[in-house]
Amino acid sequence: MTHSIAVIPGDGIGTEVMPEGLRCVRRAAELFGIGLSFEEFDFASAAYWSKHGQMLPDNWFDTLKDFDALYFGAVGWPETVPDHVSLWGSLLQFRRGFDQYVSLRPVRLLPGVPAPLAGRVPGDIDFVVVRENTEGEYSDIGGRIFEGTDREAVVQQTVMTRTGVDRIVRYAYELAERRGKHLTSATKSNGISYSMPYWDERVAALGAAHPDVRVDKFHIDILSAHFVLHPDWFDVVVASNLFGDILSDLGPACTGTIGVAPSGNINPGGAHPSLFEPVHGSAPDIAGQGIANPVGQIWAGAMMLDHLGHADAAAAIVDAFERVLARGEVRTPDLGGTATCTELGREIAAAI
Amino acid sequence: MTHSIAVIPGDGIGTEVMPEGLRCVRRAAELFGIGLSFEEFDFASAAYWSKHGQMLPDNWFDTLKDFDALYFGAVGWPETVPDHVSLWGSLLQFRRGFDQYVSLRPVRLLPGVPAPLAGRVPGDIDFVVVRENTEGEYSDIGGRIFEGTDREAVVQQTVMTRTGVDRIVRYAYELAERRGKHLTSATKSNGISYSMPYWDERVAALGAAHPDVRVDKFHIDILSAHFVLHPDWFDVVVASNLFGDILSDLGPACTGTIGVAPSGNINPGGAHPSLFEPVHGSAPDIAGQGIANPVGQIWAGAMMLDHLGHADAAAAIVDAFERVLARGEVRTPDLGGTATCTELGREIAAAI
Ligand SMILES: CC(C)[C@H](C(=O)O)[C@@H](O)C(=O)O
Ligand SMILES: CC(C)[C@H](C(=O)O)[C@@H](O)C(=O)O
Repeated sequence: MTHSIAVIPGDGIGTEVMPEGLRCVRRAAELFGIGLSFEEFDFASAAYWSKHGQMLPDNWFDTLKDFDALYFGAVGWPETVPDHVSLWGSLLQFRRGFDQYVSLRPVRLLPGVPAPLAGRVPGDIDFVVVRENTEGEYSDIGGRIFEGTDREAVVQQTVMTRTGVDRIVRYAYELAERRGKHLTSATKSNGISYSMPYWDERVAALGAAHPDVRVDKFHIDILSAHFVLHPDWFDVVVASNLFGDILSDLGPACTGTIGVAPSGNINPGGAHPSLFEPVHGSAPDIAGQGIANPVGQIWAGAMMLDHLGHADAAAAIVDAFERVLARGEVRTPDLGGTATCTELGREIAAAI
Repeated sequence: MTHSIAVIPGDGIGTEVMPEGLRCVRRAAELFGIGLSFEEFDFASAAYWSKHGQMLPDNWFDTLKDFDALYFGAVGWPETVPDHVSLWGSLLQFRRGFDQYVSLRPVRLLPGVPAPLAGRVPGDIDFVVVRENTEGEYSDIGGRIFEGTDREAVVQQTVMTRTGVDRIVRYAYELAERRGKHLTSATKSNGISYSMPYWDERVAALGAAHPDVRVDKFHIDILSAHFVLHPDWFDVVVASNLFGDILSDLGPACTGTIGVAPSGNINPGGAHPSLFEPVHGSAPDIAGQGIANPVGQIWAGAMMLDHLGHADAAAAIVDAFERVLARGEVRTPDLGGTATCTELGREIAAAI
């Protein structure tokens, strides 16, 4: 049995870290006898947009829907196309179109990564952000009135549905059952009057089915503060689309660099392919220099293999980059070294 | 000339830190020959709500409007009244009713406060968050449909107006002119399609009048990460209501504790009174133990004196708590000590 994988490198450092991700995924597949086939696509990039005036071909859904997984780099090149156009035209389409409603983002302090938080050591920080990935604050409903005048105003709608909230909260409870039986919910129900009180209500209601999971909730402002001051408090953190976005960059920053953080955009039923990508973006500021950290892309590759049923191969990749990082001989600049993206990728592949 | 000040302690640790704030403000006023009169109010508290079924008397606006400033503790006691009810019924009314459209939140790493970020020393972190304080994501427009069914959904409107965005952005540019000529704008225009692109547009447009201010913008996710990894990058950070709320808790956390952070809710024209409060909330988890850190309330008192035209008295208070913190003999538990709120408040008052 061969798993078919669509490879979409995208923009900027996406195109630099992807080869290293593929290198490691291929190596692990070889060692564990996993059949993989890859097909690469040039859409979801500014270059594609420049040529076609859109980010994706019209038939993107049919083109991708039968793959077993999508392996994604990063998209966004504001010099060429505004971010909201490129993102709504590609990545956010995939997440919605393929109903990848769970964004799974592990946060772990790794050996060998300089910790920005004083006195924290590997083991202290080990949690997962479970982010709602299809609705909420990321909505394309809204508009502008009185354009160009002093009365100009924009409105932007947040939409949360019972279906959307319940399934992500349920997923988080179930994950908490399998981990430390502790769930933290991110809210802002003291300031935002409809959406967040509703979120709280559903978190409380669904808790009835999980009496052994300890639940707490924090408003997003103080929760962000606790990520810095008490990162050891967390096990599974469930959050709306926007709050999950923030927490899953902030969490990895507390572990030293967002360059190592992976993200699974999961369609749990398997009706559509899931998508695996690093948390970082296309990083125009360092693109083209070959100095991007490939670990986020490589770790995302491990999550992909895990999702495809190969937990052992996934674990081997994770073990390999942990050992390489712990040794600390080959480090990209964000880790305090001078190695290139390719050098670190090769080192990890060799260590699998 | 006597300045009249309305004192509103509120709930929880608000009632514990307020006496210490008043102690220091009174002491400074005495030393600098400033006439102050105080009147205390019991509304904006859960106790008031229990008695009256509302957070404020009907005539709150007229009751408070002629004061020169409002000195506020903290409000919120979810055991008695849901947070969105207590906050929308009090603090958020003040901010809107008195058009306190600037929330000014200094973030500084102080001597003697244990820094959670490895290797950072006082001087490394010194910036101001300028938060829009009346509109944006904090809106009470929205509702629920199909209640109690599987089709249930909530919508929540964000509203940004030209007036609202321009005045806060302009304020931030002007503040940047007086500080390091560097402005950072918090956005999320890659994910949120109407409100945040509009925000970016206005930041860019108003920049024309301030060619010597260097402007950069970051999406809120990576900006949160940079607060942890590069807090030395920032000088003036301008943000929408929600993003400013998050950043002004996260920033102080990066300086060791949100217990020291103050907040000015300013009506720049002076048509209505401005309100000064600590950034922290009522903290039900530690309320009643007398261990709250009073520095946020005291620093807010200094900002109030500054706003009333007494920069020297304000500076004397700041200087006093900096010296006391640097000495480190009297520290509340959040600073690693065992002193009570009152002990630290007395020590600071004596040092003025
Ligand atoms: C209590 C709450 C509504 C408030 C806010 O979100 O504005 C607080 O967090 C603050 O920052 O002043
Ligand atoms: C690029 C952007 C739209 C995206 C998001 O906000 O979801 C990214 O930040 C992420 O976290 O995957």
